[in-house]
Amino acid sequence: MSKKITFLPDKNTITVDEGDNLLAAAAQAGVYIHAFCGGDGVCGKCKVRIKEGEVKADRAAQHLKSEEYDQGVRLACQATVVSDLVVEIPESVGKDGKALKRKPKTTRAISARSLEALIGKWDVDPPVEKRFVKVDPPTVEDNVPDLQRLLRAIKGGCFDCLEPTYDHPEMLKELPFILREANWEVTVLMLRGKRSREPDRIIAVEPGDTTDRLYGLAVDIGTTTVGGLLMDLNTGKVLAESTSYNGQIRYGEDVISRIIYSQRSGGLKTLQDKVVHTLNDIIQSVCKKVVISPSDISYIMAAGNTVMSHLLLGIDPKFIRESPYVPACSQFPLTRAAGLGVMAHPSVRLFLYPSIASYVGGDIVSGVHAFQMHKSPKITLFIDIGTNGEIVVGNEDWMMCTACSAGPAFEGGGVKYGMRASSGAIENFHMHPVTYDPMIVTIDRTKPRGICGSGLISIVSELFETGVVDRQGKFKRDLNHPRFREGHDGYEYVLAWSKDSLIGEDIVITEVDLDNLIRAKGAMYAGYQTLLEAVGMTFDDLDRIVLAGNFGAYIDLERAITIGLLPDLDRDKFFYLGNGSLLGCQISLDDHKRFRDRGDVSRLMTNMELSENPEFMNHYMAALFLPHTDMTLFPSVRDKLAGM
Amino acid sequence: MSKKITFLPDKNTITVDEGDNLLAAAAQAGVYIHAFCGGDGVCGKCKVRIKEGEVKADRAAQHLKSEEYDQGVRLACQATVVSDLVVEIPESVGKDGKALKRKPKTTRAISARSLEALIGKWDVDPPVEKRFVKVDPPTVEDNVPDLQRLLRAIKGGCFDCLEPTYDHPEMLKELPFILREANWEVTVLMLRGKRSREPDRIIAVEPGDTTDRLYGLAVDIGTTTVGGLLMDLNTGKVLAESTSYNGQIRYGEDVISRIIYSQRSGGLKTLQDKVVHTLNDIIQSVCKKVVISPSDISYIMAAGNTVMSHLLLGIDPKFIRESPYVPACSQFPLTRAAGLGVMAHPSVRLFLYPSIASYVGGDIVSGVHAFQMHKSPKITLFIDIGTNGEIVVGNEDWMMCTACSAGPAFEGGGVKYGMRASSGAIENFHMHPVTYDPMIVTIDRTKPRGICGSGLISIVSELFETGVVDRQGKFKRDLNHPRFREGHDGYEYVLAWSKDSLIGEDIVITEVDLDNLIRAKGAMYAGYQTLLEAVGMTFDDLDRIVLAGNFGAYIDLERAITIGLLPDLDRDKFFYLGNGSLLGCQISLDDHKRFRDRGDVSRLMTNMELSENPEFMNHYMAALFLPHTDMTLFPSVRDKLAGM
Repeated sequence: MSKKITFLPDKNTITVDEGDNLLAAAAQAGVYIHAFCGGDGVCGKCKVRIKEGEVKADRAAQHLKSEEYDQGVRLACQATVVSDLVVEIPESVGKDGKALKRKPKTTRAISARSLEALIGKWDVDPPVEKRFVKVDPPTVEDNVPDLQRLLRAIKGGCFDCLEPTYDHPEMLKELPFILREANWEVTVLMLRGKRSREPDRIIAVEPGDTTDRLYGLAVDIGTTTVGGLLMDLNTGKVLAESTSYNGQIRYGEDVISRIIYSQRSGGLKTLQDKVVHTLNDIIQSVCKKVVISPSDISYIMAAGNTVMSHLLLGIDPKFIRESPYVPACSQFPLTRAAGLGVMAHPSVRLFLYPSIASYVGGDIVSGVHAFQMHKSPKITLFIDIGTNGEIVVGNEDWMMCTACSAGPAFEGGGVKYGMRASSGAIENFHMHPVTYDPMIVTIDRTKPRGICGSGLISIVSELFETGVVDRQGKFKRDLNHPRFREGHDGYEYVLAWSKDSLIGEDIVITEVDLDNLIRAKGAMYAGYQTLLEAVGMTFDDLDRIVLAGNFGAYIDLERAITIGLLPDLDRDKFFYLGNGSLLGCQISLDDHKRFRDRGDVSRLMTNMELSENPEFMNHYMAALFLPHTDMTLFPSVRDKLAGM
Repeated sequence: MSKKITFLPDKNTITVDEGDNLLAAAAQAGVYIHAFCGGDGVCGKCKVRIKEGEVKADRAAQHLKSEEYDQGVRLACQATVVSDLVVEIPESVGKDGKALKRKPKTTRAISARSLEALIGKWDVDPPVEKRFVKVDPPTVEDNVPDLQRLLRAIKGGCFDCLEPTYDHPEMLKELPFILREANWEVTVLMLRGKRSREPDRIIAVEPGDTTDRLYGLAVDIGTTTVGGLLMDLNTGKVLAESTSYNGQIRYGEDVISRIIYSQRSGGLKTLQDKVVHTLNDIIQSVCKKVVISPSDISYIMAAGNTVMSHLLLGIDPKFIRESPYVPACSQFPLTRAAGLGVMAHPSVRLFLYPSIASYVGGDIVSGVHAFQMHKSPKITLFIDIGTNGEIVVGNEDWMMCTACSAGPAFEGGGVKYGMRASSGAIENFHMHPVTYDPMIVTIDRTKPRGICGSGLISIVSELFETGVVDRQGKFKRDLNHPRFREGHDGYEYVLAWSKDSLIGEDIVITEVDLDNLIRAKGAMYAGYQTLLEAVGMTFDDLDRIVLAGNFGAYIDLERAITIGLLPDLDRDKFFYLGNGSLLGCQISLDDHKRFRDRGDVSRLMTNMELSENPEFMNHYMAALFLPHTDMTLFPSVRDKLAGM
């Protein structure tokens, strides 16, 4: 029997069957609920309150307090629908993705050198090309078939040229009509051969001269957000951009949760559909801005991590999660976008950057490709910080890469009041050294709702620098101030009293939170060390450190060094790349020769698994201090602390 | 409102809407009615009798006599359904295609040299290959992705080998599971690179060792019949064969009628569906015989004329019919069979032989390829006789080809009692020179129902040799015998009195029929002459004449020369190839190197249009005699007539 569910506060409604899972129902209704574990019942994030009606759900002892249970709080993933329901959800995520649009801070220490200084100028010579051709109309003496007639016109008497190949029957079906309607004057859209002596391929024929209209889409398919750039491939200019939450997010926050969800019946298909839907939203958005049709886009260049790439293509990522962590493939086939359900002309190809390993994906290859690390003699450390921190070290001759599971702390996970970087998240923090009063800055300047990753770094470094937290990440016990107290999860500091918070309760940072952050930054730092040692180097050998990823934009470099997340090196060696994954797609769209050499990047990169590496474990244990057990690694931090 | 129609004599029934076309309804019901013109109303063949009920139909003055009209006879294509109907159709074609199985005669003059003598022996080395590989199971130290792991195993340490490419995501989706289920021992199905340095392509992966199971299908897609051979590609042996009427036949008998039908709304889709359905019938039939599954077939090699090729791929053949007769394309793309609706594994490719021009199709290229005409120094005249007679002359250095529209006489069209070569058709004829009594042999030895093409040649040559018909194809007027009489369409000879016929009326051959046959054979002969002249040759330069096509099997060589259909040359120069189109597909399946050189055939072949060629018209006018105006061209016929 069908039941109606209303989700508060936004009053989204949906009709489901009795016995359906409440989390799945919410997802179906487009209602966002945190669900780190994909519905496994282990993360305890998906608390909702049943205001009216009845669900069937056991009390999940480790997550729900008995008062909560009595007040109708349940884990949505553990609840099945019994009657019509009114359900209150803890946080509603606006569909406009407004929070995605916050401006990056101008971090005081990241060098202000422009991207072009890092990457250099590039040509505009895209992997697709349009050519206007006048075809001889047929006569009885010359009644060569339409296609061969067109090929002849394209070759235009050039004997040395390779004859283009051509696409699928779909193109042939239209060709005779287009040629005649256009009075034998047409524009051919050609896909350049992958290798230099591989023939070009005609993928579409348009009536008349449309050579001035050549568009490409660069897409970064992130686990959390998907970003797209519409490019004019004649000029290389970015015409429009759009960012949207990945529609898969409601099925789990990280790649592991997504893999778990994909193993459910229909799960893989659902996840594929959702990311395709997100892609289509982005396509519609950028096309609307420039007033073109989605079918005017001639090429889609995309990059994503290994799991996102698998899911987009509908390939089961199951074995990525199981030791020895083997993806189905690392080089993805050039795919027809429309075949995946992407809103595109049937001929349009979607290219996905190759992965290196299960946890070093195409987004990293694209990032490395973006700033041409494979063409520079400079020894570079490339860092993308997130739940999985990916690290690459090397130069034009060699590259070694790895991924370290930093845990979700940088994305607000594993932190009592942690949240993603959205409205109300504390993103910056200062503390009065005497009164211990906080100065809190939130995204969108609202009352605080929680703490995002960059806020967490800010808070911890401040607490450490002011001396209220020691090198082990423990609060001093002699601080006689109401903001420091023994809480439910141990000692804590009150960032915001309930009256000042949006959630009606005190927002605190606990020693458990501190510990989780220290583990996360320790994993990253141990990753750098292990990787460098594997190639016989130290931090001093590095010519530059390039930070990539969305998170990188909001990191305060000094503070990141203070807590030991980044190495204590000359600040001028640090560069911020921005969204390297998207940038790689962009430069590949611009220049097919540059695009071709992406293969060199993936061939240069050798993966190293840290998960069962004893060296890594040693480094990791040593890094579980602020900033590190070995203070000689952090001389500037040592000096700063000494100067206090 | 829906109406029920019953077709007699087989009592097929169908429910249609009021106002529907009766011919279309019959086609939908699977009832065969002659319809040469695709429903245009011009051929007058589709006469049916309305026994009960009412249709709306004008009297088509040129086709229906008033008595017929009064008796309820109507042209089905001009009739729309008004009420429930009982409709009698003139001829019912059994669905078992029994008539297709008649045995070729051992024509006394066609040389009995075996096909192998003509073609030589060939290797078995097909365009697909299976390779059994043992893949190293992954470890943490070696966790290369599944696909790259498989590719590495296939290369097996060979550094010089090209790395295979691989198929679509569909294959990748299965790969991780197959590898693990099969304990890392699998068989890869590879498509060999088109060019010699093009990498092979993995199109499927099967668990375990299946290398002993490698099957291919050769298919000739004829306008009337579709024939298929299932081949064991490990041995080159033909395992099963099957022939079926082309399901498109109910929408028109010849390619022109099919083109006309394709221009109706939904017509193109219907025709594509019908031929695919026929192909599927053949696949099921051959697979059943050998007890394999259709998904075990690894490659489909097909050939058809240009219109059939367009229709199979769903490409509109519209412009083939309009001057200057331009097809959409001549080189067809290698297509996924399943994408067309063909019952095949999703990875299986369907190859279609390239066409040369609108009326010289892939069936001719395949035929020429079959006996390796492009590799022999012998000057050969290749002839395929049908509604469109296709002619090729040349050798290893050059080839010239053309098509001449002989009209439908060889297939029973344009002849008062003409019919296709099916049960009851007169296929052989002799006449007592004194009593003028006929000796009639029919297909299936039933009472005669009509005259098929080979019967027509037999009758005309006999009437001519016995002197009752003169060189202009006119009956002598002084033969006082009841079988010679003035009929409705002029002077005629009664082949069978009504009491002896299956159709309850006298079966006759008229001067109009004779004239139609003479025009048909004249067009063929003029075609040979025009083509030879275009290359500066005469019949004496020919080393051999190769006859192909189904019709060729039933031609009596002497009689064909007697009427002037074939040139009067040394009988030892004549070879009969059989179904060359099917044979070409067969040898291409057998040997990929032979398959690759098919391109040489189509490059060698130059097309010549006869339709507006004044030389052809001159030769044609001169050929409208038995055997020809110029008796020096037919010395053996002259001698035979003189010896009488």
